Amino acid sequence: MPRTIKLILEYDGTDFNGWQTQTARRANQKQNTSEINKRTVQNELEEALQTIFNKKPKVVGSGRTDSGVHAWGQVAHFKTTSSMPLTEMRNAINANLPDDVAIIDIAKAAENFHAQYDAKSKIYRYTILNRSNRTPLGRNYHLFYPYTLNLRSMREEAKSLIGRKDFKSFTATDPSKTPRSTIRTVKCVNIMKRGDLILIDIEANGFLYKMVRNIVGTLLAVGSGTKSKGSIKDILAQKDRNAAGPTAKAKGLALMRVEY
Amino acid sequence: MPRTIKLILEYDGTDFNGWQTQTARRANQKQNTSEINKRTVQNELEEALQTIFNKKPKVVGSGRTDSGVHAWGQVAHFKTTSSMPLTEMRNAINANLPDDVAIIDIAKAAENFHAQYDAKSKIYRYTILNRSNRTPLGRNYHLFYPYTLNLRSMREEAKSLIGRKDFKSFTATDPSKTPRSTIRTVKCVNIMKRGDLILIDIEANGFLYKMVRNIVGTLLAVGSGTKSKGSIKDILAQKDRNAAGPTAKAKGLALMRVEY
Repeated sequence: MPRTIKLILEYDGTDFNGWQTQTARRANQKQNTSEINKRTVQNELEEALQTIFNKKPKVVGSGRTDSGVHAWGQVAHFKTTSSMPLTEMRNAINANLPDDVAIIDIAKAAENFHAQYDAKSKIYRYTILNRSNRTPLGRNYHLFYPYTLNLRSMREEAKSLIGRKDFKSFTATDPSKTPRSTIRTVKCVNIMKRGDLILIDIEANGFLYKMVRNIVGTLLAVGSGTKSKGSIKDILAQKDRNAAGPTAKAKGLALMRVEY
Repeated sequence: MPRTIKLILEYDGTDFNGWQTQTARRANQKQNTSEINKRTVQNELEEALQTIFNKKPKVVGSGRTDSGVHAWGQVAHFKTTSSMPLTEMRNAINANLPDDVAIIDIAKAAENFHAQYDAKSKIYRYTILNRSNRTPLGRNYHLFYPYTLNLRSMREEAKSLIGRKDFKSFTATDPSKTPRSTIRTVKCVNIMKRGDLILIDIEANGFLYKMVRNIVGTLLAVGSGTKSKGSIKDILAQKDRNAAGPTAKAKGLALMRVEY
């Protein structure tokens, strides 16, 4: 009887072409060679497992993360007939993974546990360095934004995002990326200030492609005064990507936790 | 009358071949091409200044930092006849520097100020992640050390480093790197624990090549029990690099401040 193993992963997205090995896109679309050759977290993990178990199990993540997006708590599962103890398995996987990805927790899950389908909600954090001078150390983990931000109006506008809504205006226009339904439930948006850092935590039952980054780009437009009060309500109503603000850079974003 | 400009710099040493452009070594020693071609902070700064002033001033740093070593507060100076206001100059330099280095402060110094010769003391910090699992995020800024450390014995041994001493045992064996005198005054060694991190701050009037990293490697040997009580006193007395512990990795080290 194979065990279903649940993994919690941390990774630095800087040098990854995102979570997922893009087999479908490789076959269907023209892509430049550099993008095809770029590493994915899923593939690194599958190759580590192949080394340990002498066969390559299929690893399923809770969902994609884009190129450059980090994770403190991505979740994935795979099945194995190996009887290796879990602590030993965790150490073996970590020993075979490159420096920029690691297993931080491992557990036996229910046999039919599915990292993607069983996810109840996800929490993403976007980090903004809001001061006049950029900082070289840690530059891959925040967006540098030197302009004054009105956090009060950002928080006020963010309230319009809460609830079960059609987030079509906040998803990327690439039609191959859009799932059938663009309705999602945003549970909370928490905008915090810690010294020079502004943290935007967003929890939802699921996220559309580039949804967090488009929400953050729009909130920044609100905070800097480019977009006025009531904008987010209007943007949601228009169901048009062009109505929302720009896409915030990937490097400020991290998947914090997946709840089941 | 040229002004002498004092700069405080922050940089991420990961992708630099250290602070200094290695002209002497290039001419005198065989080196592989990759090392010669690797970027230095000094050169990036000189090239930014050349773009702004249409000529390349000589930039003098407080001292070298090795390949991979970071800086929160490196100090450098250069002379210029330009009358550009300082804030404008800082912004212009930062606009012309790559993402991994930035000016965090700029000031007019006394005409004969010298970043290297006038330095009274330097403070370096070494950061150790001391827990069982490595962490991919921020991995370029600490040494991962999963073994138990006895901080009490490390602090006790560190006392033997304080004062005006011959640190020959703690400098690299490369003879081209050793200055005439190996005597330095270590003012304090402060070993702190913050959660999973162990921070070792060392202040001295100057440091020999690889001195901090060799001290840290030795302190880790003390903390893990490989070296016993009284070791550091013995090592200092032997004046032999082979007596001390291994060199700790560069990436855990940062130049915090230079005092004048």
